[in-house]
Amino acid sequence: MHVIVVGAGIIGLSTAWKLRRRGVSVTVVDPNPAMGASHAAAGMLAPAAEVVWGQSPLYPLMRASADLYPDFAADLAAASGHDLGYSRAETFVCAGDRADLASLRELVDLQRSSGFDVSLIAGSRARDLEPSLAPGVCGAVTIPGDHSIDPRRVTAALLAVLRDDTVRARVNTLINAAGRTVGVELEDGTRLTADQVIVAAGSSCNDISGVPRLPLRQVWGEVIRLRVPEALTPLLTRTIRGLVNARPVYIVPRPDGELVLGATSREDGRSGTNAGGVHQLLRDAERLVPAILDCDITDITTRARPGSPDDVPIIGRIDPGCVVSTGFFRHGILLAPLGSDLTADLATGGDTAWAPSGSLAAVGPERFGSQNLPSNAPATQHTVLIQQPAGSHP
Amino acid sequence: MHVIVVGAGIIGLSTAWKLRRRGVSVTVVDPNPAMGASHAAAGMLAPAAEVVWGQSPLYPLMRASADLYPDFAADLAAASGHDLGYSRAETFVCAGDRADLASLRELVDLQRSSGFDVSLIAGSRARDLEPSLAPGVCGAVTIPGDHSIDPRRVTAALLAVLRDDTVRARVNTLINAAGRTVGVELEDGTRLTADQVIVAAGSSCNDISGVPRLPLRQVWGEVIRLRVPEALTPLLTRTIRGLVNARPVYIVPRPDGELVLGATSREDGRSGTNAGGVHQLLRDAERLVPAILDCDITDITTRARPGSPDDVPIIGRIDPGCVVSTGFFRHGILLAPLGSDLTADLATGGDTAWAPSGSLAAVGPERFGSQNLPSNAPATQHTVLIQQPAGSHP
Repeated sequence: MHVIVVGAGIIGLSTAWKLRRRGVSVTVVDPNPAMGASHAAAGMLAPAAEVVWGQSPLYPLMRASADLYPDFAADLAAASGHDLGYSRAETFVCAGDRADLASLRELVDLQRSSGFDVSLIAGSRARDLEPSLAPGVCGAVTIPGDHSIDPRRVTAALLAVLRDDTVRARVNTLINAAGRTVGVELEDGTRLTADQVIVAAGSSCNDISGVPRLPLRQVWGEVIRLRVPEALTPLLTRTIRGLVNARPVYIVPRPDGELVLGATSREDGRSGTNAGGVHQLLRDAERLVPAILDCDITDITTRARPGSPDDVPIIGRIDPGCVVSTGFFRHGILLAPLGSDLTADLATGGDTAWAPSGSLAAVGPERFGSQNLPSNAPATQHTVLIQQPAGSHP
Repeated sequence: MHVIVVGAGIIGLSTAWKLRRRGVSVTVVDPNPAMGASHAAAGMLAPAAEVVWGQSPLYPLMRASADLYPDFAADLAAASGHDLGYSRAETFVCAGDRADLASLRELVDLQRSSGFDVSLIAGSRARDLEPSLAPGVCGAVTIPGDHSIDPRRVTAALLAVLRDDTVRARVNTLINAAGRTVGVELEDGTRLTADQVIVAAGSSCNDISGVPRLPLRQVWGEVIRLRVPEALTPLLTRTIRGLVNARPVYIVPRPDGELVLGATSREDGRSGTNAGGVHQLLRDAERLVPAILDCDITDITTRARPGSPDDVPIIGRIDPGCVVSTGFFRHGILLAPLGSDLTADLATGGDTAWAPSGSLAAVGPERFGSQNLPSNAPATQHTVLIQQPAGSHP
């Protein structure tokens, strides 16, 4: 059996890897592997902190995928020999002021009623444990089960494992024969055939001709990467999330000293790095961790998250030869182990090892009925990174 | 006659160009041409707005160089065929609040007493002329004579004109024979000889062995480049400088739609892009022009300005075969026409066409006497730029 995976983000790559481990031959096709939303993602593995009102269909998926993560990470680290920046340190969700604390109290009730292990501690106690927190932080939710991983390291490891199975090219269209997808045509006209095609191209799925119009929306976001100066290392030992004047913000410390500060959410269709977004992130992060302003910015990345109408992924068969796997919104890194299993199961026709409510109904594209929402226009993507010339003096 | 110019910033390049136009053969040596402070500079040609207390030796230099600019720019545009982004629009210096206005009033008195043509107008009048100014701007100084040019275009034009005379290499040391510099030795051991060597390596001059220790200090600064969204174009038609809570900030609009927002000043020896600096620039600029936050960040560049103890350039002969030309601090772009003339005059032994107080005394390195201030350590340099991949969907 041969499977083509369109899209080398974390979903496409982890699905291809799972398939190969099952003995399936795979080809991953992407013009810029691992440079989409996975390149921006902070990599919080946070089923509890991601609990928000009105998204209860997501909770069992997030919890199930979080349970799969230790094995997923261990297997990938072993297969690739790469360090994935996996951290099992706990997460704090901090309140920027008393109003934010009131919101956190309500969220804690929801998280607890959903079965998550969370506690509310005083600001002074939070500062005892994490001394870089600002004096203004007036309370924090501690979440022992919310961890993190470095998505750039994960995709680099997956690309290393799949290096002989990856083609740098753009897929223009699915090739259909008698109602069944039988392959893909690349931008240069090359045709690749396969027993199954998996479309895992994030928010760009609708740019591929032959894919039924999916109700995807592009939720743009800025993410800033920083380096902590030697004198302040380690600035943080936990992921610090927070609400600041009701705006969510997070700072993820990596084992290698990097901080990831995010993230804005914009549905304005603008692919550039918004100055207001960068300003908001720095301003809100300073409220929680003032010393963030003493760090060096190394990278600002702006990407589109692939959102679905209900923020639940879209995984399902669209014809006898084609499966789609997208719509992972802000949860692609967390949901990769589960999403790749479900997608691989579908593509190979096997029983699903796990599915919400015993079926794929919660994630299937058929839940949107005959909806044909207009797709977003293709957009360019932006990365701000630090160029470090060899030196400047002649 | 053959002259080696060490350093391909705007001073080294314009000096080399002047020499070549006088019939002198030149070789410019730099490992990363035009990627030092000139790459960060906003390019304000602002003799009046740069007037600050205690720098009166600078005023005649700035004024004389500003007078040379129209011919300098016209000659270079003609020689290279390049558009230099030269704008003769006036400059506003805006007050962020009443306290800043009090400071501006005092500065206006100083500028007027120094002979500059400046006027103070009300905030409402400033907004009539420049509608993007914030409601909080409570007054502005108008300076018809302060213009701007795009330093990246200027150095690109100079490099184009000098393309056959530029060597991408690092100079390790001056070669001295019997008390006279006779050439330079490159990092790879190559030796180049010349009748004269001009050291114009900005804040890195002290990294070159054989150059007497100059009292240079590295004044680091962040500069942000932005693009105005189509719907808001043109956001500004003048250079907007200002004081915001006593902090200087500027926004230079380019003819091509780019905005340049700057600049921080740090002498902390840190070459990275400081998060606090970026935050400060965005926050202060928003106070003057709120819509700056609706623009896209395309580039953040951090470089060291070559400061001297009195903020006046250091131009002078250090031995019969060597001239130094550095210490242009925050005025390198404005002072390039004059500084390159003075430096070329010195190197060729001719009379100086112009010099403050009829001599080079004001800029000569001998004014620092036997001072041997410790030099800054070599440091890497940082540019943040927007990578725009060809696209992301497979």
